[in-house]
Amino acid sequence: MSFSRLPVAVVGATGFLGAELVRLLAAHPRVDLALLGGSGSVGRRLGELRPGLAVGELGERVIEPAEAELIAERAEVAFLALPHGDSAELAAELLSRGCKVIDLGSDFRLRDADDYPRYYGRPHPRPELLSRAFYGLPELTGAPPAGCELIANPGCFATALALGLAPLAPLCKAGSRLAVSGVTGSSGSGATPTSRVHHSLRSANLSAYKVLEHQHLGELRQLLATRTLGRSAPAVDFVPHSGPLVRGIHLTIIARQDELAGDAAAALESAYAEAELVRVRRDATVELASVLGSCRAELAVCQGEGAVVITVAIDNLLKGGSGQAVQNLNLLCGFAPQAGVPLYGVWP
Amino acid sequence: MSFSRLPVAVVGATGFLGAELVRLLAAHPRVDLALLGGSGSVGRRLGELRPGLAVGELGERVIEPAEAELIAERAEVAFLALPHGDSAELAAELLSRGCKVIDLGSDFRLRDADDYPRYYGRPHPRPELLSRAFYGLPELTGAPPAGCELIANPGCFATALALGLAPLAPLCKAGSRLAVSGVTGSSGSGATPTSRVHHSLRSANLSAYKVLEHQHLGELRQLLATRTLGRSAPAVDFVPHSGPLVRGIHLTIIARQDELAGDAAAALESAYAEAELVRVRRDATVELASVLGSCRAELAVCQGEGAVVITVAIDNLLKGGSGQAVQNLNLLCGFAPQAGVPLYGVWP
Amino acid sequence: MSFSRLPVAVVGATGFLGAELVRLLAAHPRVDLALLGGSGSVGRRLGELRPGLAVGELGERVIEPAEAELIAERAEVAFLALPHGDSAELAAELLSRGCKVIDLGSDFRLRDADDYPRYYGRPHPRPELLSRAFYGLPELTGAPPAGCELIANPGCFATALALGLAPLAPLCKAGSRLAVSGVTGSSGSGATPTSRVHHSLRSANLSAYKVLEHQHLGELRQLLATRTLGRSAPAVDFVPHSGPLVRGIHLTIIARQDELAGDAAAALESAYAEAELVRVRRDATVELASVLGSCRAELAVCQGEGAVVITVAIDNLLKGGSGQAVQNLNLLCGFAPQAGVPLYGVWP
Amino acid sequence: MSFSRLPVAVVGATGFLGAELVRLLAAHPRVDLALLGGSGSVGRRLGELRPGLAVGELGERVIEPAEAELIAERAEVAFLALPHGDSAELAAELLSRGCKVIDLGSDFRLRDADDYPRYYGRPHPRPELLSRAFYGLPELTGAPPAGCELIANPGCFATALALGLAPLAPLCKAGSRLAVSGVTGSSGSGATPTSRVHHSLRSANLSAYKVLEHQHLGELRQLLATRTLGRSAPAVDFVPHSGPLVRGIHLTIIARQDELAGDAAAALESAYAEAELVRVRRDATVELASVLGSCRAELAVCQGEGAVVITVAIDNLLKGGSGQAVQNLNLLCGFAPQAGVPLYGVWP
Repeated sequence: MSFSRLPVAVVGATGFLGAELVRLLAAHPRVDLALLGGSGSVGRRLGELRPGLAVGELGERVIEPAEAELIAERAEVAFLALPHGDSAELAAELLSRGCKVIDLGSDFRLRDADDYPRYYGRPHPRPELLSRAFYGLPELTGAPPAGCELIANPGCFATALALGLAPLAPLCKAGSRLAVSGVTGSSGSGATPTSRVHHSLRSANLSAYKVLEHQHLGELRQLLATRTLGRSAPAVDFVPHSGPLVRGIHLTIIARQDELAGDAAAALESAYAEAELVRVRRDATVELASVLGSCRAELAVCQGEGAVVITVAIDNLLKGGSGQAVQNLNLLCGFAPQAGVPLYGVWP
Repeated sequence: MSFSRLPVAVVGATGFLGAELVRLLAAHPRVDLALLGGSGSVGRRLGELRPGLAVGELGERVIEPAEAELIAERAEVAFLALPHGDSAELAAELLSRGCKVIDLGSDFRLRDADDYPRYYGRPHPRPELLSRAFYGLPELTGAPPAGCELIANPGCFATALALGLAPLAPLCKAGSRLAVSGVTGSSGSGATPTSRVHHSLRSANLSAYKVLEHQHLGELRQLLATRTLGRSAPAVDFVPHSGPLVRGIHLTIIARQDELAGDAAAALESAYAEAELVRVRRDATVELASVLGSCRAELAVCQGEGAVVITVAIDNLLKGGSGQAVQNLNLLCGFAPQAGVPLYGVWP
Repeated sequence: MSFSRLPVAVVGATGFLGAELVRLLAAHPRVDLALLGGSGSVGRRLGELRPGLAVGELGERVIEPAEAELIAERAEVAFLALPHGDSAELAAELLSRGCKVIDLGSDFRLRDADDYPRYYGRPHPRPELLSRAFYGLPELTGAPPAGCELIANPGCFATALALGLAPLAPLCKAGSRLAVSGVTGSSGSGATPTSRVHHSLRSANLSAYKVLEHQHLGELRQLLATRTLGRSAPAVDFVPHSGPLVRGIHLTIIARQDELAGDAAAALESAYAEAELVRVRRDATVELASVLGSCRAELAVCQGEGAVVITVAIDNLLKGGSGQAVQNLNLLCGFAPQAGVPLYGVWP
Repeated sequence: MSFSRLPVAVVGATGFLGAELVRLLAAHPRVDLALLGGSGSVGRRLGELRPGLAVGELGERVIEPAEAELIAERAEVAFLALPHGDSAELAAELLSRGCKVIDLGSDFRLRDADDYPRYYGRPHPRPELLSRAFYGLPELTGAPPAGCELIANPGCFATALALGLAPLAPLCKAGSRLAVSGVTGSSGSGATPTSRVHHSLRSANLSAYKVLEHQHLGELRQLLATRTLGRSAPAVDFVPHSGPLVRGIHLTIIARQDELAGDAAAALESAYAEAELVRVRRDATVELASVLGSCRAELAVCQGEGAVVITVAIDNLLKGGSGQAVQNLNLLCGFAPQAGVPLYGVWP
């Protein structure tokens, strides 16, 4: 069977990541949105639930049940934008029916099932699938291997951390530590209302959470280990913060000069010399606003007295989520790398 | 001379409207960005000034002087995104050199030069050009006439007002008045810093300004007159407000039931039945967030006891500015109506 | 038994209105906070729940159960800051035990029990108490009568509407209508998380709700009727909006010149000539930011061609809630009118 | 001459810090606002310029010229809330006329005139005064010495940094470094409009600035040196950020466990055991919203694997400015330490 356009499904189509996926895929030149899957909203029209997508036929599309059989019958690739922990079973069923999976959740990001309890507080439900998953952060991990059927899309903080730290880690001397402070917007918490995202409590506020123990450190450590080749990677003292932003992740990495064996700026520039969506600048800092609305990442290096400061900015829902998932789709299917990927920041 | 892609220029390329134009045109399948014109930023690279556009070649483009000869030599159509009052002279020079003009400023919106002093506080510098200008609000005024060389892109508030009121005006009995309250984001004031857009003073604030005398009422009245055909149009008591938003315009129109001779909802639905970018709903209200990032307009009608309330939402920089300018380009040049026009809202 | 300071209770002490009450009363020279009542938070310390109040002894205070016997034993006056509909029973029990009540909810605002179903969708649970309640909007209704035991504190929108419209209504000719558009912050919805107050969905958004049927119209109509003395009051076409603000209510009232028999500005100036917390200006508009943090109200009148526009601003939690409740306490108890009332706006 | 209330002047009364000072001092039980000084606004009424202060007589007060003779004639103590670098001359003139000075600017914060060029880019204009100045951060430096006539009020970031680091520095082993990331609101930049505080550019944005070289590091280093008694203080790698906040400073301090000789939490708790406005918690993080509107500071300590994280929150205009200046006044004059100082946070 051949398609002029690849039929894809988006499961969890009305959440923050799902709706962004639908928006991007609706404009992708090589795919057809074959199925929009949901749970509570089954039977309702997309345009009614997400008015921003109420244009032409797209708005008339009806949310369908997220059943593996239905999805596999209609789609060649399914994007899963589900709450963490909800992807494993559905992915297993889809894979067994020949439907490829790009999972935006955290279920397939760690290769070692033994790591799950530490980061996610429970054993992995389908450990046998982990070895089949490819962790896809295109600028660092490249294209998935031939025959790949399951891509784990990185976490939002993990994406920003990895972009900043992967080129840096090989320069770090043994025993070194990197201090990292990050700020994320409320969209990173998903659409479910909680006190944490109450407008009155979030708007003029900032607070640290999961201090030194954010779950994305698991996938980061796994990635850094592949970069330092046997030598131990630097410890990452990471403090995430909830900020009064809707979108975006901003990281500030402080490295000690005497723990670096090499030029951080040169390492970053070299790592991303061919990466059109990543820009590295020297003697500068990044602005979060520069990347919002795009799948770009901005990095900047500032050399000070005794320390080097690297700042990183991404849009958490795009480079940290749906945009990167489309990058992964393009690599998986041999499409043009930037097809359907939003290149330019929306400003202001 | 023939082009596979139409060469266009954006003058004022680093302002809020100009940068949006560049973003949209860079992805437009039928145009080439032949020239990016500026004043203070001449000689600097676009990607340095507007980091969100620092992707590939686009970011390397250099801002050039906004000189008519240079522009006309390179471009077939020039978009002018200049401060109000600065377009007239440049437009005259461009037109005389055979370069078509789409002006995002207010210089060509009123047909009668005598109206300028009332709304803009000074006489029009080039009144002889006014009769050549076509006021282009696609869903209401359609395509420009053959041979058109000068399009006046409507003002942001004017766009929202016209979308809500043009279908309503013919229903209004003689002597009727419409009460309209509008809220706009800070991007509507442009990139120049003033107290009015100081973050500390704008963020947790709301205030009315130009009460009953916003300058966009001029173009609105001109448009409504064409709809009521001799009968006097309703008076519009319009109160604009500065809101703690970056983007967006939201209008609330309150009409008295006994001053309407007809069904407001039906009139709106009928007016936009074919307009893919405009959606009308009944027994509903609009959300500003639904249109942000897109060139869509949302309208909703609520029937109450003795009054009808119509709410309207647009993105002021897109439907109220650069997106509409691209719609006008498409109509002027016979391109697909939605080529390069952002269709879907970015949410959240 | 005599007290140097009056013992008062705050029931619902950890909600938005309750916490503001505690803050104000803790600094009130004539009262003692005798009891802080709650439900879910009983047994926990105030400073742990509301860190902003974690100063000295106040922060160590423990939330106690909201039981009438306990409250009446300790306090002479109880403030009830409970969800709408939850005050009636507790108030009845308190009154029967000799404890006076200032209710910040809506249960005692309408004098006629028959009006409740229309505005609140259910019959009033204790209609026999309604005749004992005094609706206290100090600048309009003055001090409660001697012997008063139950004060209904006005709603937030009702306060702003009444301040703007009560002096205006007597000028309105028969059959006239006033068009009113209002914007409120998310704190008006209370501390319970819902989609309506999700930070991602509220921040860059604005939308109308309860169009022409906000429940505060009931108390407004009741108040206006007392001002127009037999003649029918003007109809009020009121459209409230949820805005991207945390605090504050801004109203825009559009009146038709030919429906006013008198000078609106003069009427407003005269009404508030002695009201230190209310300021009226001519040929001006109000700024919401001017009143935030204070119990002040700002009003401004703008005369246009054919219409008069009055803008009103209050802090919904202070003049529209807890601050006004303290004003009512002062009047009830013969304290200095502004004791414990925040006079000055916090800017920026 | 004796006063029942101390006559004080506020110079720069309409800026962000000045207006806050006026608000606090208007409610201070021991002072009279003898003069409000300004420059551009001389002759205008306070209530017209700062509507939030338009209550009673205060609003009618007229801004007067900031002339030393006039000020010294009327006031015993003058608060200077002027742009950095503008205080030195006026302070000298006031001191020579017997008027005490509390300077909210940076002109008297460093004891060694040789340090000014490094941090402020120019030599100090009146170095002979430096030895007379007392750096007043009450919880750390206590009351000024008898006879003190000149108090330097600490910088906003310096206040937060010092509160977190002063108790920590003595525990730091030789050669240790502390990584500190801070976020500040736009009010810290003052009322003058610039691109940096343009609402459209600041609202959904975050960016680092003055990386590792913020000028407040000068006063911090001076203070830390007094704590470490000869031993060298830890290096502070401080990265400040502009955040989408109006008010507030949040700091995140990351210390390496193996560089600390002692228990950080215990040191902080001990340092502030008697400080009613400073709260320290363990196994917790601070929320910026908890301190806004108050002169409080919140600190929290989180012990992780290999690192300790301390978070700090203050209101930059109050604890980081005007509120602390009132604390200093109280200590200077022997008033109750918290007279006129806002104790409780305004929430939400």
